Amino acid sequence: MATCSSPTIPPSSFKHEKNLSQRLLSTKRNNSPVFQIRANAHFRRELQIKSSNGYPLNAVSFQEEKTESTISITVVGASGDLAKKKIFPALFALFYEDHLPKNFTVFGYARSNLTDEELRDMISKTLTCRIDQRENCSAKMDQFLQRCFYHSGQYNSEENFSELDLKLKEKEVGRLPNRLFYLSIPPNIFVDAVRCASRCSSSPTGWTRVIVEKPFGRDSESSGELTRCLKQYLTEDQIFRIDHYLGKELVENLSVLRFSNLVFEPLWSRQYIRNVQLIFSEDFGTEGRGGYFDNYGIIRDIMQNHLLQILALFAMETPVSLDAEDIRNEKVKVLRSMRQLKLDDVIVGQYKAHIRGGRTYPAYIDDPTVPNDSLTATFAAAALFIDNARWDGVPFLMKAGKALHTRRAEIRVQFRHVPGNLFKRNFGTDLDKATNELVIRVQPDEAIYLKINNKIPGLGMRLDRSNLNLLYSTRYPKEIPDAYERLLLDAIEGERRLFIRSDELDAAWALFTPLLKDLEEKKIVPELYPYGSRGPVGAHYLAARHNVRWGDLSDENL
Amino acid sequence: MATCSSPTIPPSSFKHEKNLSQRLLSTKRNNSPVFQIRANAHFRRELQIKSSNGYPLNAVSFQEEKTESTISITVVGASGDLAKKKIFPALFALFYEDHLPKNFTVFGYARSNLTDEELRDMISKTLTCRIDQRENCSAKMDQFLQRCFYHSGQYNSEENFSELDLKLKEKEVGRLPNRLFYLSIPPNIFVDAVRCASRCSSSPTGWTRVIVEKPFGRDSESSGELTRCLKQYLTEDQIFRIDHYLGKELVENLSVLRFSNLVFEPLWSRQYIRNVQLIFSEDFGTEGRGGYFDNYGIIRDIMQNHLLQILALFAMETPVSLDAEDIRNEKVKVLRSMRQLKLDDVIVGQYKAHIRGGRTYPAYIDDPTVPNDSLTATFAAAALFIDNARWDGVPFLMKAGKALHTRRAEIRVQFRHVPGNLFKRNFGTDLDKATNELVIRVQPDEAIYLKINNKIPGLGMRLDRSNLNLLYSTRYPKEIPDAYERLLLDAIEGERRLFIRSDELDAAWALFTPLLKDLEEKKIVPELYPYGSRGPVGAHYLAARHNVRWGDLSDENL
Repeated sequence: MATCSSPTIPPSSFKHEKNLSQRLLSTKRNNSPVFQIRANAHFRRELQIKSSNGYPLNAVSFQEEKTESTISITVVGASGDLAKKKIFPALFALFYEDHLPKNFTVFGYARSNLTDEELRDMISKTLTCRIDQRENCSAKMDQFLQRCFYHSGQYNSEENFSELDLKLKEKEVGRLPNRLFYLSIPPNIFVDAVRCASRCSSSPTGWTRVIVEKPFGRDSESSGELTRCLKQYLTEDQIFRIDHYLGKELVENLSVLRFSNLVFEPLWSRQYIRNVQLIFSEDFGTEGRGGYFDNYGIIRDIMQNHLLQILALFAMETPVSLDAEDIRNEKVKVLRSMRQLKLDDVIVGQYKAHIRGGRTYPAYIDDPTVPNDSLTATFAAAALFIDNARWDGVPFLMKAGKALHTRRAEIRVQFRHVPGNLFKRNFGTDLDKATNELVIRVQPDEAIYLKINNKIPGLGMRLDRSNLNLLYSTRYPKEIPDAYERLLLDAIEGERRLFIRSDELDAAWALFTPLLKDLEEKKIVPELYPYGSRGPVGAHYLAARHNVRWGDLSDENL
Repeated sequence: MATCSSPTIPPSSFKHEKNLSQRLLSTKRNNSPVFQIRANAHFRRELQIKSSNGYPLNAVSFQEEKTESTISITVVGASGDLAKKKIFPALFALFYEDHLPKNFTVFGYARSNLTDEELRDMISKTLTCRIDQRENCSAKMDQFLQRCFYHSGQYNSEENFSELDLKLKEKEVGRLPNRLFYLSIPPNIFVDAVRCASRCSSSPTGWTRVIVEKPFGRDSESSGELTRCLKQYLTEDQIFRIDHYLGKELVENLSVLRFSNLVFEPLWSRQYIRNVQLIFSEDFGTEGRGGYFDNYGIIRDIMQNHLLQILALFAMETPVSLDAEDIRNEKVKVLRSMRQLKLDDVIVGQYKAHIRGGRTYPAYIDDPTVPNDSLTATFAAAALFIDNARWDGVPFLMKAGKALHTRRAEIRVQFRHVPGNLFKRNFGTDLDKATNELVIRVQPDEAIYLKINNKIPGLGMRLDRSNLNLLYSTRYPKEIPDAYERLLLDAIEGERRLFIRSDELDAAWALFTPLLKDLEEKKIVPELYPYGSRGPVGAHYLAARHNVRWGDLSDENL
């Protein structure tokens, strides 16, 4: 398989480039400081290509006409849930909004015997993306479906992937071919599929990239083994490890908030921040599909990847630039500065049955796909520490759970007390509640708000907490693209910022592996909590030990 | 006249005290950290009284029954505009909401020959306060009017004030009398009225306080002279110099914002703040009543008092406590650290006629009460500097004007550029527009908002400026009391925090007097600007010289 930084990368997407520049210009016109990083990134790439190919600037349009590129996107595991619910809809949304390159083909690859028409039928039927209410949607859908094809094959059959290669070549004829594989398949067949795809259907002259989904192993060893295997067939640059939380709007915005606003960065350290909370909750259980989950548990499923990634972005030092390697370098540094988790730093829970309003909500172990004696955690809370100059002693508390009372993902930053507070008398014993809090609500109802103490209007001096509020639905009426759209587009464009590098992955596992082993070897029994509740009480005790109050469970947020 | 801190202050308002405690308790119940400074202040005062009188705690209610206090509020200049529009409505609003002490009497004093009934008629007819749409208003109004009386007299007649004294005594009989005089009269008769009131109608055993309105002189000399004269008859503690801007909700809130929120104080210095703007504009001219104004001009009318007071509150160091003397000490320190203004630091303007939509808006000198050759400024912009460690080099820009395009009073804090901005490329040459800005809108539509840079949701990295917003009308549906209500209540309760001490006044005049003399002696011609426009262009040049852009005139605020 060719490496990604092949010197034969063609000046392919100049048409696309032009569109982006136009978009840039059109957004500039409305007088607000609005600019396109993506356009800049393209521009830099374009210049590189030109200089490496030695073409003078005015030869660009000439060159463009000589060789156009095309991209083939193969969704391996095309009949699976993720493909149906996320990948195809995201590809269509990108197409609908003219973000895909001019020439592209989408291939579905799976074991089932489907025709192209059957795949198209499936795609159009399961379209649940943000586009489906828009005008002209069905005409665009028809155009999109004409670019979609199906190939049936085994995931470990080099023969089948060779057949795919022939079909891809048919579509690519006369153009410089780039190929993107999205592996939406179970982990046990990852390496086989990568081997086959790499050996038999890599692009002969363009780039080949592979998007892989979690789980990336179960611990340091299995993750390391997986990486080693992948690297037999792929270079690091070709592997795009997806963590879809990194594609979420408000997570993307974290760096903007910190690094483009003077008002936040001075506060971003142990001097002013008392604790940081990373909270994820779902209001449903495994609902009959706990088979995969039971083997992993909530810590592997949510904490070690999604929440830890957000933490690293939140806590990292200022990178040299916004380039992928610079950002990922800083994230690795944070992860490597963190203390390994011990049993003592964690509490685990598992939901039990609960009857409410005449309805019975099942226990986790009532799920038929889960063993009756399962000790798998469906809830966990953990206290993490970063032993560096910026964060020494600041607890980073994580909490993740299924079957809780609400669906939510958010970052809560609790600031310290005001030293020598003049208004102490007016807060009485509730000074704790009077600290400032910055909340970044990742989902649902994206928002940023800063809780401040304010004088209640009126005679006398009474204080309350008010929010300086930015609710996305009010400020930005346009719907927010799904994380998968952003990540797919980034992979197509070779932007690696939001994908996880193997040393990041190693550092993340290093933090959690000893704890996970301990939990399993010592058969730690999770604390039971009722389905639909606020989770086990143990989470409060853990927080209290670090002098923290969960912001999401405070009076004013219930 | 007795001093305010008379040892004979009775434990008068314990009933009232109880109400406040109850209010405190009732607000506590809704679980938010809501507390009453006023209640605390009362509580402290109560304790002092008890200890100085030597009564044990359980003797309080006994003592209470022995001597109740009463307060007589005399509005001197009762038939004037301010009395009708502000003072009587504020007194009624306080009464309506049970903020006045149980026993009180209101006297109108003026030269016109009115009966009690005619005064009552006038009060009820000119009631334009926030209460007049409320339920039960007319019944309460009747109760209030029964407490209102009129006394006709000359402002310089000791005889007439002695007659007033007799009438006051009639109403006070059997109670410990406290007396508050509100001087709502032209400056040339201030001292006479104070002399007469002090000699002939001071409270014999309770306290006597006098509220005086601006102008407090025209310059250092005349202001000093006025203070000297007042102090022949009154102690400093008895003089309540009112600046109604200090009673405005968002000005009161300044100290809360700064000192009860950790997120602001670290940013509150030259290290992070680039400039501060204090902006006042009216969208109407003198409209035939320019006689008084022409003798003073906008600098004396708005800048030297209202805007400078706000500046001092904004910029002061943390006071030892929230007590009046501590706060006023800090304000004086700021004022004394400021550079005297020079001609070069100021531009002045005067509005000229303007025809728009077929309507002619008159020039300032078209006002029949204004001389045709008047050089009085109806607009001024000034750059001020505080030469202390916190603010060295930070321009504080003031702007005040009549007949502008909008009505507004606000504080705008512009923060510095982000050092080493990673997103510089994305702001291009507009980095200047991308700095954070905290806006405290005093009127109208009270609000606090923080302009931050944010990622525009969507694919690609585009930034814009969004507001973290706290709009009072949304957050606090109850109407906000008029500044005069707060200030009258404070004067009744002896709370001096929002009144101007004579050394503050001296320091304020010291800053502006040389400039005002220069403007007059050199007959500086103001730059003309059209009625209803954004003011003279000179204001931009002044700002530009200090590397500042007026926030209220930026694209996004028009």
